[in-house]
Amino acid sequence: MIDFSFQNPTRIHFGRNAMDKLPLELERYSKRVLLVYGGGSIKRNGVYDDVMNKLKQAQAQVWELAGVQPNPRLSLVREGIAICRKEAIGLVLAVGGGSAIDTAKAIVNGACYDGDVWELYEGKGNNETALPLGVVLTIPAAGSEMSRSSVITREEDLCKRGRNAYTNFPTFSILNPEYTFTLPPYQTACGIVDIMAHMMERYFTMVENVELTDRLIEGALVTVVNNAPIVMAKPDDYDARAEITWAGALAHNTLLDTGRIGDWASHKLEHELSALYDIAHGAGLAIMFPAWMKYVLPRGGAKKLAQFAIRVLGVPESLGSTEAVAAEGICRLEAFYHSLGLATTLTEVGIDESRIPEMAARAVGMAGGRLGGFVPLSPEMAEEVYRLAL
Amino acid sequence: MIDFSFQNPTRIHFGRNAMDKLPLELERYSKRVLLVYGGGSIKRNGVYDDVMNKLKQAQAQVWELAGVQPNPRLSLVREGIAICRKEAIGLVLAVGGGSAIDTAKAIVNGACYDGDVWELYEGKGNNETALPLGVVLTIPAAGSEMSRSSVITREEDLCKRGRNAYTNFPTFSILNPEYTFTLPPYQTACGIVDIMAHMMERYFTMVENVELTDRLIEGALVTVVNNAPIVMAKPDDYDARAEITWAGALAHNTLLDTGRIGDWASHKLEHELSALYDIAHGAGLAIMFPAWMKYVLPRGGAKKLAQFAIRVLGVPESLGSTEAVAAEGICRLEAFYHSLGLATTLTEVGIDESRIPEMAARAVGMAGGRLGGFVPLSPEMAEEVYRLAL
Repeated sequence: MIDFSFQNPTRIHFGRNAMDKLPLELERYSKRVLLVYGGGSIKRNGVYDDVMNKLKQAQAQVWELAGVQPNPRLSLVREGIAICRKEAIGLVLAVGGGSAIDTAKAIVNGACYDGDVWELYEGKGNNETALPLGVVLTIPAAGSEMSRSSVITREEDLCKRGRNAYTNFPTFSILNPEYTFTLPPYQTACGIVDIMAHMMERYFTMVENVELTDRLIEGALVTVVNNAPIVMAKPDDYDARAEITWAGALAHNTLLDTGRIGDWASHKLEHELSALYDIAHGAGLAIMFPAWMKYVLPRGGAKKLAQFAIRVLGVPESLGSTEAVAAEGICRLEAFYHSLGLATTLTEVGIDESRIPEMAARAVGMAGGRLGGFVPLSPEMAEEVYRLAL
Repeated sequence: MIDFSFQNPTRIHFGRNAMDKLPLELERYSKRVLLVYGGGSIKRNGVYDDVMNKLKQAQAQVWELAGVQPNPRLSLVREGIAICRKEAIGLVLAVGGGSAIDTAKAIVNGACYDGDVWELYEGKGNNETALPLGVVLTIPAAGSEMSRSSVITREEDLCKRGRNAYTNFPTFSILNPEYTFTLPPYQTACGIVDIMAHMMERYFTMVENVELTDRLIEGALVTVVNNAPIVMAKPDDYDARAEITWAGALAHNTLLDTGRIGDWASHKLEHELSALYDIAHGAGLAIMFPAWMKYVLPRGGAKKLAQFAIRVLGVPESLGSTEAVAAEGICRLEAFYHSLGLATTLTEVGIDESRIPEMAARAVGMAGGRLGGFVPLSPEMAEEVYRLAL
């Protein structure tokens, strides 16, 4: 175990009646509220009305910033900051998934920063404080509802930058699993893959003696694997949705990072895929993670992959060698992704090898020449991972 | 899963160099520091010197409140509050285990409360704020370093009261597993039992559909069970000490409460034992928990006890009926406690049945007539649990 510091101040209100806590939070912070959300889904599924009713009851003044898109954009962030400043907003409330939350994170930080908000994402500036940020979660996937990270895209040049900061932790997050009942199956599936990937990126570490966090991650992964088929078959199963919703928040809230260094190569390789092709992040991860596993298996990864296979996917230790057990684990993971209706190869989604060198170079370049903590990848090695995904 | 709210703001600095973070924390809060600790152990093992060196480097002004005892006392708390007020203390720093930390918690709250601090413990008053509280942990056991609870004893009538409050969460806690190397084996063993009991009290719940938290608890328990023999055999094994230290903080930091209701009967039954007899809390729990398990097994507890036996203690499911698997789990838990050098019966520690009715009546009376959430106990039932412990 390596030394670490850990703190997560986000207050979680979880459950069927979680929204009842919103008026209390408004009393605590402010009744001048900027609502940040995407398109029409929260209007169709009633979440927008639930929020507005609570805001009205509390006699809050509400400004709205709609139109958040996947890969949320800098221009909308700037719009939100301008509203915060002009209207003396005291609380920004994000309603949605990772994109709405990440936009709101950029707004609450940018509003308390004298320079341009993009400087924060370029690492050229810093803010000490941020406006209070509330979240009403509708998509368990990104984990942004309890995390310190935010990713924003500058649309002029499609430059995508992430920022990790203490002031990115939401002040409070409202998680009602019922709000996830109406998610399309594809989005539910992609969310499940993303949640598991957040756990697995942390799991695959070269740091030794991390039994506690290993076992916490394994327990969380098993829970997601067990509940995934239930929500796919029965989208309004409250109990299974609740397990996945809470797991999604814990997956990325930095607790599972304690004392270890994660890998994150699969995430970075997937980001390049999403940047060039129209593929959802979760769908891309279902392709890249097994490919990455196949690549690292014979390169020092067999032991940890075998542990994953045995403890998470129930592969019998008696199956054979460490390598055989590890390989069977990857096979079962792919089968699991298929059972969610997702592809596990680039070919299945119509992506060929033409841009592999470009993606590999960019992913490794962004990481400073070596990608990942488990088995550090050179550009050539990253290319091989992409080819294994074909 | 039931609805819940969760927040834990404590900042953890963990590892060999965790103490290096102390000067930063002093800069953040105050350099007028009240140091709260027990007897000579921190002077013998060098922790006192480590702390004083850091305080000196930071040019802090230090007041000392020594003499904290097990079952920490109200009079010392009042002394500490008086110092805080007279000297305008800006940070209280507890160095030690649960008793030092609980004393410091009472001080930081009492110093910001206009009435007498005992009113807070009687539930007759409340404080909105508290002084900043820092912790340097030397005994992983009580979990107070990351918890919202504090227990204080009024010595006049030996009235022991607990208080749970948001303002009880330490502001920061420094956890260096090396500081636990010199613990006597008996204290290490008692700490391990206490940590496991904090997990098990939460584990045994009648709330259904709590798979995620069940599996997190199981993973944490397995980790403690695996690392306990290592630290007993080799007290300066850093890695095993680290696993147990971090597990001890997570055991009681309220994360493992989310969405469920714990039992806590064994804790309450043990408190009565400690109050009447000179027995350490952990040693008492090693006796009361197995007895409680034997009592609840045929009274609705078999299924969960069997799950515990299989997943935590590796009892093969094929052993037989649910009841047989559950019983084997209890047997293995007792063997585990014996392996730590602890007794698992009252007889072994020289306690007879003479005061059982008195203890049962008090424990159940304090709980309002029914004790525990898993199988609620009447006074007569609580007596039977004590008798099973003989």
